[in-house]
Amino acid sequence: MHVTPARPPAAPTRTEGPRRRVYGVELTHVDAAGAARMVDVTDKQPSARTAVATGVLRTTAEVVDLLRRDGLPKGDALATARIAGIMGAKRTPDLVPLCHPIALSGVVVDLAPDGAEIGIRATVRTTDRTGVEMEALTAVAVAGLALHDMIKAVDPAAVLDHVRVERKDGGKTGTWERPEDRS
Amino acid sequence: MHVTPARPPAAPTRTEGPRRRVYGVELTHVDAAGAARMVDVTDKQPSARTAVATGVLRTTAEVVDLLRRDGLPKGDALATARIAGIMGAKRTPDLVPLCHPIALSGVVVDLAPDGAEIGIRATVRTTDRTGVEMEALTAVAVAGLALHDMIKAVDPAAVLDHVRVERKDGGKTGTWERPEDRS
Amino acid sequence: MHVTPARPPAAPTRTEGPRRRVYGVELTHVDAAGAARMVDVTDKQPSARTAVATGVLRTTAEVVDLLRRDGLPKGDALATARIAGIMGAKRTPDLVPLCHPIALSGVVVDLAPDGAEIGIRATVRTTDRTGVEMEALTAVAVAGLALHDMIKAVDPAAVLDHVRVERKDGGKTGTWERPEDRS
Amino acid sequence: MHVTPARPPAAPTRTEGPRRRVYGVELTHVDAAGAARMVDVTDKQPSARTAVATGVLRTTAEVVDLLRRDGLPKGDALATARIAGIMGAKRTPDLVPLCHPIALSGVVVDLAPDGAEIGIRATVRTTDRTGVEMEALTAVAVAGLALHDMIKAVDPAAVLDHVRVERKDGGKTGTWERPEDRS
Amino acid sequence: MHVTPARPPAAPTRTEGPRRRVYGVELTHVDAAGAARMVDVTDKQPSARTAVATGVLRTTAEVVDLLRRDGLPKGDALATARIAGIMGAKRTPDLVPLCHPIALSGVVVDLAPDGAEIGIRATVRTTDRTGVEMEALTAVAVAGLALHDMIKAVDPAAVLDHVRVERKDGGKTGTWERPEDRS
Amino acid sequence: MHVTPARPPAAPTRTEGPRRRVYGVELTHVDAAGAARMVDVTDKQPSARTAVATGVLRTTAEVVDLLRRDGLPKGDALATARIAGIMGAKRTPDLVPLCHPIALSGVVVDLAPDGAEIGIRATVRTTDRTGVEMEALTAVAVAGLALHDMIKAVDPAAVLDHVRVERKDGGKTGTWERPEDRS
Repeated sequence: MHVTPARPPAAPTRTEGPRRRVYGVELTHVDAAGAARMVDVTDKQPSARTAVATGVLRTTAEVVDLLRRDGLPKGDALATARIAGIMGAKRTPDLVPLCHPIALSGVVVDLAPDGAEIGIRATVRTTDRTGVEMEALTAVAVAGLALHDMIKAVDPAAVLDHVRVERKDGGKTGTWERPEDRS
Repeated sequence: MHVTPARPPAAPTRTEGPRRRVYGVELTHVDAAGAARMVDVTDKQPSARTAVATGVLRTTAEVVDLLRRDGLPKGDALATARIAGIMGAKRTPDLVPLCHPIALSGVVVDLAPDGAEIGIRATVRTTDRTGVEMEALTAVAVAGLALHDMIKAVDPAAVLDHVRVERKDGGKTGTWERPEDRS
Repeated sequence: MHVTPARPPAAPTRTEGPRRRVYGVELTHVDAAGAARMVDVTDKQPSARTAVATGVLRTTAEVVDLLRRDGLPKGDALATARIAGIMGAKRTPDLVPLCHPIALSGVVVDLAPDGAEIGIRATVRTTDRTGVEMEALTAVAVAGLALHDMIKAVDPAAVLDHVRVERKDGGKTGTWERPEDRS
Repeated sequence: MHVTPARPPAAPTRTEGPRRRVYGVELTHVDAAGAARMVDVTDKQPSARTAVATGVLRTTAEVVDLLRRDGLPKGDALATARIAGIMGAKRTPDLVPLCHPIALSGVVVDLAPDGAEIGIRATVRTTDRTGVEMEALTAVAVAGLALHDMIKAVDPAAVLDHVRVERKDGGKTGTWERPEDRS
Repeated sequence: MHVTPARPPAAPTRTEGPRRRVYGVELTHVDAAGAARMVDVTDKQPSARTAVATGVLRTTAEVVDLLRRDGLPKGDALATARIAGIMGAKRTPDLVPLCHPIALSGVVVDLAPDGAEIGIRATVRTTDRTGVEMEALTAVAVAGLALHDMIKAVDPAAVLDHVRVERKDGGKTGTWERPEDRS
Repeated sequence: MHVTPARPPAAPTRTEGPRRRVYGVELTHVDAAGAARMVDVTDKQPSARTAVATGVLRTTAEVVDLLRRDGLPKGDALATARIAGIMGAKRTPDLVPLCHPIALSGVVVDLAPDGAEIGIRATVRTTDRTGVEMEALTAVAVAGLALHDMIKAVDPAAVLDHVRVERKDGGKTGTWERPEDRS
């Protein structure tokens, strides 16, 4: 993770002006004057880290059927989205302005067609100094965009939903899992 | 739009096998054998086209307050997301495998903080041979990823939702607006 | 084509030093002093142009069998190479220093597994001011690199061969087809 | 090398269906269901690794003479190809879908004009977790594409041939040299 | 030019708050609320446009001598900078957030070693809807960065100076030449 | 630093021809034959390194006032330049042909509007095998280009000046500070 972890708002904290800190937390990607920066992680230790993100492309059952074609040799549609997601993970520092450019040691993008939806799940690994939540989220978003692209002629109303981190492991802050009350 | 428009399934159509066409529609990004391709638009006419896409980043009211800081000089957080979205629109053909590389003649990304959410809206214009829905969707997704990045230390559970096309104008197929029954 | 076409050496031409012109031809990508430049095509007319390039990845029959798996649901291997080729065509101006950045109106990459080889064929179209031979060649080369990558664990000795232009149409110079004596 | 090394087919192995494994080998870039993935190298050790790849651009003696101009101040043509190759090596993870983004610690591209051919040789080094065969092959291919580009006005029939790995060192699998019977 | 041209402050103009307009001019890349945007040029006409930019890399006479080597076969140093500048021009929309992605129809980068300096001059042409000042400036800056890189071991104190537009032609605003009082 | 450090010209050194070495120094980015290469840093040790570069965009006081708007909510103009600089630092190996692709562990871009100028200062950190002077210089140059872009409609005569390294720390050569006599 590039950033100071969120701490529980145990006690009122010293604030730097009334709105710089809320409940003991702050935005780490801007400095005290509000200027954007790439957070300095020079002193963090490299370690194995994993992040899992998910999302879903909602369309119609007919379109999902076109994409998977019921078990017949399936064509390249889902492969195109998987590859877009994997390549998208690698482009994360080009897309997300304040992300560190880091080495990725593994990327898997799973697509699960089900009824009128395609579930998307990305698992990204690194051995670097920052977490890879953004790379996992980017893989999901780009796979979803590739699906949008392939079906937009037959369903321009499709929606990419629920792009979010499910879990991350490694680094100083250890494991985080999505709380049940934040669907 | 790169693709054959979806037509209403008025009459039974000639099908290329039982699953290549469903309700008179087909995936235009794969050929009859299922191979991915960039659809040939050589014979389409250049014309002014616009696409509008939206999405929403759901977090907490406290985090939204950090991002906008109630009217004080607001820092770079929202600017970072706007710029990420604009630059993301330009990277669409690098991200979405079968998109055509085209000229963009205008990109606006609007962010609307409201309660526990940040609304995202991208408007993209071109004078080229294909529509710019994908560029608008990519702008929304990348702006959403940039927001995710800036707040992930204080809310790792944030969610990017409802990334979808609202409207498109221009080209042979004319105006399309999102139907009310497809939220 | 970005360049002055090769003319037959009909008559002795004015030469700029003994080696700047050989048989009435010259390198158009360097100026009279030898400096690299992107040739000025401002005054050329936009027109529909097509280029076809081919190549072949030579490996073993066993490896080709792994890639295509005899008619069973074939997995993503060939799709990965097709998509790499299509995306590679779009990256041509980033890779080939003196290429013009141009709009592409269609890209198809065909892969033909046959015995111990995979044939690669790319067809690229544009409506711009220069030809798209380089985009077609780049699509073939990048598809070939993607195949190399996927099989290098099982056949590090594979070879990408015969990357070449087969045909081009359109523009002022019209149609060129590969002569039979230049295999 | 990103992948499980090919083992000799010493004994009949457990096969996952008749074609998933052939002679004890498998494609490591697709999973058991055929889905493309970036292989996980998290547990591999960083070490110094080198890969050497070669290729050849075949044209005519007159064109080679234009490129090198016999010892006169030679202009930028060969430099353009060398630089294209070096920069191409750095773009490998953007081009080859399943390649890991890795640090490169050195790239040399040698060009050897000889008769009607230009020999191309790239040597790439890293200290990372995977081999750099793909980076070396990409350097050769992109240098070859740059040569194609510069001469296509005078020889559209040029051919890029024999793009292949010659040798690799380092990592767990140690040194591999091209066998003599695989020209 | 992407933007509303600066007009002389002939008469007091309607102002949008006291600082939005100064002397009848405004920043066109931000809207009335200060949000960055890519200016809409959909309604502008394509036309041939040229921009010329210059700059200078200041180092020492000894280093300049290393770079050009007095008439001997000069090596790749200056070629590397020329090519970096040409390729940099093509990357302008990836680097400058609010620039339009446009077609370039010609790029020339001239380097003039002279005493302790290397003069840099870039000429960029397009047939598109916006001017190419930014592409010319980017070509100069990137050529200068490449020179910095090649000499930094022998002169870490080198300076890139005077990166500026000299002239632009074409489009609705016609020709602009650098005034003499703005060195 | 990617390169052999400049040594004081203590004694006459063995020269490779009269101009390959001047005062004991040489260009490390070209080999003995003048061919460009990415210098091999495989044997260098990773260590924390910092580089600071600066530059200045010279325009008019009125334009600087437009950019900062005297303490009112300032809009995105300066944020756009800061973000361009940070993202530019990450693109350094794509722009500067012989730069190594390396991990960056922190980037800060400071802008200081003052009178008719905007001062630009970039601080870049890494834990890799080479210095980050080029990344710092690139951040400054790209931030300067973004400023140029935003004001070119109101001041086409602006100038980016004094792009230079101020200081670097870390690595085998230790700290270097800009000498006072090299403004």
